[in-house]
Parts: sequence; C-alpha cells; structure tokens
Amino acid sequence: MRITAETVADGIREQLFAVSDIPGVLWTPADSSGPRPLVLIGHGGGQHKRGWEVVSRAFPYVTACGFAVAAIDAPGTGDRPEHPEIRRLVALIDEQEAAGEPFGPALTALYETVAAQLIPDWQATLDALQKLDSVGDSQPVGYYGLSAAGESGIRLVAAEPRITAAVLGLVACDWLLDAAARITIPVEYLLQWDDEGNPRDSVMRLFDALGSAEKTLHANRGGHFRIPPFEIDSSIRFFARHLGHAGVPSSL
Amino acid sequence: MRITAETVADGIREQLFAVSDIPGVLWTPADSSGPRPLVLIGHGGGQHKRGWEVVSRAFPYVTACGFAVAAIDAPGTGDRPEHPEIRRLVALIDEQEAAGEPFGPALTALYETVAAQLIPDWQATLDALQKLDSVGDSQPVGYYGLSAAGESGIRLVAAEPRITAAVLGLVACDWLLDAAARITIPVEYLLQWDDEGNPRDSVMRLFDALGSAEKTLHANRGGHFRIPPFEIDSSIRFFARHLGHAGVPSSL
Repeated sequence: MRITAETVADGIREQLFAVSDIPGVLWTPADSSGPRPLVLIGHGGGQHKRGWEVVSRAFPYVTACGFAVAAIDAPGTGDRPEHPEIRRLVALIDEQEAAGEPFGPALTALYETVAAQLIPDWQATLDALQKLDSVGDSQPVGYYGLSAAGESGIRLVAAEPRITAAVLGLVACDWLLDAAARITIPVEYLLQWDDEGNPRDSVMRLFDALGSAEKTLHANRGGHFRIPPFEIDSSIRFFARHLGHAGVPSSL
Repeated sequence: MRITAETVADGIREQLFAVSDIPGVLWTPADSSGPRPLVLIGHGGGQHKRGWEVVSRAFPYVTACGFAVAAIDAPGTGDRPEHPEIRRLVALIDEQEAAGEPFGPALTALYETVAAQLIPDWQATLDALQKLDSVGDSQPVGYYGLSAAGESGIRLVAAEPRITAAVLGLVACDWLLDAAARITIPVEYLLQWDDEGNPRDSVMRLFDALGSAEKTLHANRGGHFRIPPFEIDSSIRFFARHLGHAGVPSSL
C-alpha cells in the first residue's frame, strides 16, 4: 500500500492510498493511534470513494466511535481509468431507462462485471489495511453499502468472513437470494418505501433470505435517495454495538 | 386525580394514582421538578400498567431523557374490576385458539369493547396529568403501544391531537386502516418478521396506510414477544428527537 496524500481536519486524518491500482481513502481519528475497528463503505452507482453518501457516514463513524473507515473507487469510477465494458453497459441501461424499457440482462451483466473486479479489490484492500498500525488485524470489521454498494456488498459479505456486521439495502436483485442466504452476521437492512426502481416486495425478499440470526429491516417513506438522516445515527449505534468502539464518546 | 402511593428508587419517583375509577402510575425523575415531555405507555393483552414491557421502557425514558411516563390499566386488567363482557370475549377467543379455529368477530368485538372505554380513559388521564406541576400542559406528549396497545394506540393517536409522536406496531387489523390514514405525526412502527398471529403483509398494510410524512418500519426476526432490546434504545432516541428531552443525559 502506498499513502499518496495525507491531510488532517476537524479531528480526522484523511489518507489517500493505492493498493496496486486500487485507489482508496482511509479516515482515522487524528489524535489517537493503535488498532481499532474498521468500517468499509461502498459507494453507490456513478459515485466515488469520497462522495457525499460515503463521507456523511465516515466522518461520524470516526468522530463518534473512533473507528477507522475506508472506501475505494469501484471499477470505472473516481480516480480509476475508464472501463470500456462498464461504460457500454451503463450507456445501454441509460438508453433503456430513457425509452422506458426494462433493463433486461444489461443490468445483471453490469453488476456481474463490477463485482468480478470489486470483490477481490475489497479483499486486497482489507489485507493491506490490516497491516497498518492504525487498523491492525485483530479488530472487527464492518461493511456499509446501499444501492449498487448493497448489491456488491451482499456478494462481499457472503464471501468475506472478516466482516462481522453490515448495513445493506436499497437493492432488489433476485439473483442475490443464494448469496443472501449465506450471510449469517448481524445486518441492518434499509428499504425506501417509495423506491420505484427497487420494489419493496423484491427488497423484502432479499431481507427474508438473509441467514442472519439478527437482522433488522428499517423501512422509511420516500424515494431511493431520501434516506432520513436519523438512519446514519442508527448505523452508528449498530456498528458500535457489534464492533465495539475505540473510545467512549459522550455522544453514545 | 388522587395520588394513592409514592415511592422513590434508583432516581425514579413512582406515583400510583386514580383518575375517577381509572388506576394509573406516573414515573418522573426523583431529583428534578417542573414540566417535562410525557410518554403514555399502553400495555399488551392480559398484562397491566406495571408489567415488564411497560416498566422496561418507562424507566430508561425517565432516566435517559428526563421524561414523565404514565401507564393505566386497561378495562378488566390490573387493579380494575372484572369486566364481564371482556372476560366472556377473551374466554371465547381462548377456546377458538385452543381448537385451532379463526377468531372471527369475537376479536373485533373484544377490541371494540376495550377501546370504547380505554380511549376516553386515556384522554381523561391526560387531562389530569397535564394539571400536575411535574407534567404541565405546554410540553409534547408521546405514546408507546404494541400488540393490543398498538390496536388501541392507533385509535387513540388518530383521535388525540395532543399526542405528537408514537411508537406503534405488532398489530394486523384491517379495520384500523381508516384510523391509520388519519395519523399524521411521526411514527416508529414495529413488526416481528415471524409473528404468526400478525402476518407481516397485514402489519405492513397498516404501516402503508399511515398518513405520517415521517414513518419508519422496524422489522426484526422472531416471534410476537421477541422484540430485541436495542429497539428500546431506538424508541428512546425516537422520542428524544420528537419530544425533546428535559435534561441532556450523557447516554444520548
């Protein structure tokens, strides 16, 4: 792992890094050192590792819980090179959406293409992060990912035993039912009640399939992107409960 | 209102009271005075005002948020006299359950009979509580009630504008859809995923019917009575968000 840039602001150290050709970012408390629980945050479709939905979770996880938090760019996004096949599939899906047609096999192909690279990338990143003094390999690991990062997240969590708690959701993908059934860790699962692209029946079918003894569905009114802010707070408490926290902040 | 007994333990003042013939209990912080937000807690079927599911919520609401919390016995329960019609209907329902038969009109009749007395009782109790210095009539009011207290709670919340936030759920009662649609306050709504007596589709139909702009469904694995303890914590934060809290405790 190469650290390519480092800044400190508002009590948070931000380190940009690269694990071979995977660009990532690690946030840790600026004023402490030593191993700590780690949360990996996946970003949504068309976003990148420092997008608002990542940062809005990462910063409070660091400041309220003392966690390390990491994000990487998915293939074809952020600081990664163009990915011709992903670009072709996204353009095809955009055309189908504009024409009001169903996505058909293009959507599955897109997710398969992304996952074939992204899942091993996450695992290589986790290997590298656990060699850092500020993370270590003896601390629990969580994953947070919704929408496209929920799709890849179900695959990742099903495949990666180091991850012991996950916030997932906003996906309706029947092809993931088998992967969901292999998940046995605690899961907080988000559903937007009026998410037209992810019908609630399909989302709940995935929740139902999860093999976890502890799983909680949080359904809120509104469309795909309208997750209420109090769900960030809820995810903080979920991870604090399952990963512990490095400090004992006054806000918990 | 007559205060019939008062004790203090673990920082909580418990006052037993009667509002005409309605027996109730009020919990407030032992070490403070003056008006504060009030949470009314309804108890489940066959339980009473000081049952475990009431006390397990009431005590942390008082200690973590500084709220006043009140509960009353539903007709035919706790310190209230036997109610022959309720007793007859409960016996009939028990017989039907033992025989594996559907409850039919007896269940609706039971709920109607209870509600005809319980809703005005709650309103008279709220009138009396708001005259106390330790509650006052200028503070917000919440309601917490699941199962039978979710059934009556939907009726109460739909009828009582002084209640401005509610935790409801564990009920599948299609006859309440119109009442649910009249509810516009923030609601946290609980569903047990494997609750055989309250099929999830019916419970979600009620959630869907709620007219509230802010409504959150929390579904957890397990049967009717197996609500995970972290949902108590979630309800504390829900009420703190919507009712404010009298102090600023370190646990929030």
